[in-house]
Amino acid sequence: MKNYERFISFEGIDFCGKSTQTAILLETLQEKGINVHLLREPGGTIISEKVRSIILDKAHLEMHAKAEILLYSAARAQLVHQKLLPLLEEGEYIIADRFYDSTTAYQGYGRQLDVAFVQQLNHFATSGLRPAKTLFIDISPEEALRRQKAGERQKDRLENESARFFQLIYDGYQRLIKEAPERFIVIPGEDSIENVAKNIQETVFKIWNQE
Amino acid sequence: MKNYERFISFEGIDFCGKSTQTAILLETLQEKGINVHLLREPGGTIISEKVRSIILDKAHLEMHAKAEILLYSAARAQLVHQKLLPLLEEGEYIIADRFYDSTTAYQGYGRQLDVAFVQQLNHFATSGLRPAKTLFIDISPEEALRRQKAGERQKDRLENESARFFQLIYDGYQRLIKEAPERFIVIPGEDSIENVAKNIQETVFKIWNQE
Repeated sequence: MKNYERFISFEGIDFCGKSTQTAILLETLQEKGINVHLLREPGGTIISEKVRSIILDKAHLEMHAKAEILLYSAARAQLVHQKLLPLLEEGEYIIADRFYDSTTAYQGYGRQLDVAFVQQLNHFATSGLRPAKTLFIDISPEEALRRQKAGERQKDRLENESARFFQLIYDGYQRLIKEAPERFIVIPGEDSIENVAKNIQETVFKIWNQE
Repeated sequence: MKNYERFISFEGIDFCGKSTQTAILLETLQEKGINVHLLREPGGTIISEKVRSIILDKAHLEMHAKAEILLYSAARAQLVHQKLLPLLEEGEYIIADRFYDSTTAYQGYGRQLDVAFVQQLNHFATSGLRPAKTLFIDISPEEALRRQKAGERQKDRLENESARFFQLIYDGYQRLIKEAPERFIVIPGEDSIENVAKNIQETVFKIWNQE
């Protein structure tokens, strides 16, 4: 596995605040003059965005779990080879809103596919690229359900899932964290946006040796 | 591997006449009152057709070989689980214009990806479904190039490839035929449309015990 020091990914179950937090972090880093890019998965290239629109289309209730994981992997393969690896080669910093751990947690553990094959597939799609660190924003499946019910924003197909699915994914992440403790950093997510942002900022500054 | 007697696939390099021949065969079989379906890859379901349009878009010159094979596999996974397996369970006959051997030949051998992984990926996407027989319509890479130059029809991104690519794919198919001689039947393709059609018809009638 190639391990790029300037590449950090964010993971967590739905409603953990990942999108909000990565946007805040991006702004903070840019204000410090760091050349940093925020990539979201699936997406980030023309081809990957087209794949994203197929995956997230609420009309596609018939989508098979295997088609879903292969579409995620296709979007990721394009993103990695067209954009992520070239940016890292140029010395840019990258923060990713989800990377292959999401596939293992959601499709592998959540949809109960063969996890060993899912990890081989991840390795193939990324050509072995691994984030230096992965920040897991930790909220419980119960908290995710509470936030889902409270929220009024439009839900896409994937977020419209059951409590059991949240639990499977959460447990999947716990296994991944246990398997790669040197890479994962757990950020408690059931706090105010400001406090979580401060924790993330300090953690990232430490990883990248910024003041 | 599950082997369904009522499922036959067609393979060959570009310009071998596969689309013409499967259309003729479909008509012949339907005239005999056989409940037969012609599936084309990639495609055959709403999701798979959307994936097809991404794959075959001529504007996508930047498509990485890994994204390409994962998109083909996604389209196939959806086709197999949503349509192909249910039709076979109902006792219908299926002829497929390309199946997973195309992925091994084109993406594995042609684009020089890891062939062993490609075959694992094929197994995953199809959940082990295997055609009873595979008819390989055999034209040489040289003949394919001649037909490509002579043809005036619009070429899609994939057909706009080099002589070397045709050769790699052809050689890849030869290895697949050697590895599964009980499944492959070679149909000489450098003959008139009528003669090739007659050969295919007789071969398929024999496989399915039709008069």
